[in-house]
Order: sequence, then structure tokens, then C-alpha cells
Amino acid sequence: MMTPENLVKQIAFIKEIDKIKYIQRRTKLFNSDRNENDAEHSWHLALMAIVLSEYSDAEIDLLKVVKMVLIHDIVEIDAGDTFIYDTQKNHDNTTEETNAAERIFGLLPEKQAAEFIALWTEFEEGVSAEAKFAKAMDRFEPLLQNTSNNGGTWEEFDVRYQAVYGKKKVIGKGSATLWEYAQQLIEESVEKGILKK
Amino acid sequence: MMTPENLVKQIAFIKEIDKIKYIQRRTKLFNSDRNENDAEHSWHLALMAIVLSEYSDAEIDLLKVVKMVLIHDIVEIDAGDTFIYDTQKNHDNTTEETNAAERIFGLLPEKQAAEFIALWTEFEEGVSAEAKFAKAMDRFEPLLQNTSNNGGTWEEFDVRYQAVYGKKKVIGKGSATLWEYAQQLIEESVEKGILKK
Repeated sequence: MMTPENLVKQIAFIKEIDKIKYIQRRTKLFNSDRNENDAEHSWHLALMAIVLSEYSDAEIDLLKVVKMVLIHDIVEIDAGDTFIYDTQKNHDNTTEETNAAERIFGLLPEKQAAEFIALWTEFEEGVSAEAKFAKAMDRFEPLLQNTSNNGGTWEEFDVRYQAVYGKKKVIGKGSATLWEYAQQLIEESVEKGILKK
Repeated sequence: MMTPENLVKQIAFIKEIDKIKYIQRRTKLFNSDRNENDAEHSWHLALMAIVLSEYSDAEIDLLKVVKMVLIHDIVEIDAGDTFIYDTQKNHDNTTEETNAAERIFGLLPEKQAAEFIALWTEFEEGVSAEAKFAKAMDRFEPLLQNTSNNGGTWEEFDVRYQAVYGKKKVIGKGSATLWEYAQQLIEESVEKGILKK
């Protein structure tokens, strides 16, 4: 048979995104010294979204949230991972990331490419209910990891309470319950001395 | 606040499943010498299911398929990875795996635990439309990887055409189009000498 044109494009995309497995994050695995990579991180966020969906303040399309977290870091294949507490380089939707989204999602058939670019843009904007909950997951996982690692990246890169609190507040846009829990973890971390004021 | 009882359980589950990131598969990443781990594999299958869903022969609940592939290897935290071409140990739903499902999914609140155990069981049985498509993804990914790696695990463990064809046939239960494409890849691999008859 002739392989359908769409399938040829989809296989190219499936091969290309394998590269995400080499992109190291600053954050370490739970109780571990080993850096997490973007594929592992995205897998974990997808399962967190599924398991924690009852805590979303707004009604959400769970499949949409899962798609968002599964693809949200694919642009880093071209643009690289930016540390969330980096003071030089802003993590927000850069030209570099937009170009990456267009190149990589652009490997897909046109309609699918448009859907994925729209999903990624929606996630980055953080306005829709799904984007808010997806972003809450993205901020919540490293909080759990850092508290399991005696401070983890906070300790390693001297990140202080105010910066952490500022970034983690995003959790509260998706879920009041998870933000309350997150605040407890942050306060406990200060008490334990693994997060400095 | 008092943390909700459900949330305590869900956090315990989220931490436990981090261990899947240490479980190495035999298969290597695309064009690579580096073994894939179960988290990376599960992430890739989830995205493959999303991207390739149009080729499912039966109508499917895509969120259900995605959940299945995201959790299908979690039992390996206790039971370990069994090589699909292992002639000593059968991969199919062993007592060890059932116990693992009950222990690990059992960390979740009761209703969620029951849902996850049911999803995993349905995947293992491979009878429903969703399970068939999920299993097709699980067989398709290593085929793409091995062909990108000059034979990969076929070469490394002297796995021959008949064994590969027998295992990959499962793809056809989920998708005629993908099975036709897979057969082409298998035949091409024989022609190239990277899969022996």
C-alpha cells in the first residue's frame, strides 16, 4: 500500500519528539540526586492531572489538560529548558519557543499542527480553566520534589521563600485546595530550614 | 486546614509512581544506545495514541486509552520489566503483577483505586476497543525504535522474524492501517538485513 500522507507526517513527529527524553530539568526525582527529564516530567504531570482533577475549581475538559501537559515542554527540543527562577532569561513564551512550536508541531498534518500549536499557546497564556489547572500541575510537581529532597533546587541555587511563594501562587489559580496544601508545604519547609526567608 | 484524606492518599500515590523512572526497558531510544525507561515510554505512547487516534478501527474513548497507556507499566515498580521476547517468563498478567496493581493503585482513594485497577486489567485483557488501540501503541513504539537502531533489540537478543511478526500482529487488532504500515517496516527490515528470518 501507499502509506497515507498524514501517517508519514505523524511518524516524523513521533520520532522528533523522542529528543525531549534528553532534556534535563534542574529539578531532581523524588528523594534523589538524579535530574528529571522533560518526558518523565510530562508523564508525571499527566497522571497528576488525572488523579487530582477533582480539585480543579472550574469544570475542566480533562483530556485537554492531559494533552497540554504532555506537549507543554516539546518546544524545549529547540529552545532548551529555562530554569523557572532564572533571573536573566524569562520563561514566558519567547520568540524562540514560538518558532520551536511552529517547527515541531508543524511536522504534523495541518489540522493537527494547528490544534497542537493552539493547545500550547493556550497553556502558555494560562487563562482558560484547562490551562490554569495544567499550570498548577507544572508548579506543584517540583514543590513535591524539592520538599522530598531537603530543599532540592532551592538549596542548590539559593532560591528564597519570596521567589518560591511568587511562582507557586499560580497553583491557586487552578485549585484553592491544592494551593492551601502547597502553602502548608512551603511553610513547613521554612520551619525545617530547607527554604530560607 | 486539615488536608483532605483523599489528597493525602493521592500524594502518596504520586510520590510512589516516581519509581517508574528508574525502570529500564530493553528497547533503546530512537537512533540511540540509551535504554528507554518506563516513564518515557508511557509518555511517548500517550502522545502516539493522541496523534494516531484517527487510525483506530473502532470508535474509542481517547481519554481512556491515554489513561491506560500512562498507567500500564506502573505494576513494574514491584514486578519489574519483562522482555517481550523472553522465553522463560511470560509477560501476561502474572500474580506478581496483580499484587503490584493492588498495592500501588491501592494507595489511591478507594473509588480511584478501583478505576485504575479496572483500567489496567482491561488493558491487560486486550479485548475492548480502547485496550486494543492502547496495546497497538505499545507494540508499535519499539518497532519504530528498533528500525531506527539497525535492528536494536532484535539484533542484540537474536530475535527473529517469526517472533517479531507474532508479537506485532497485535497492532492489527487495533488498527488495520497501522498494521499495514508495521508490516512494511518488518519486511523492509528483513530486506535490509536488520531482522533475520
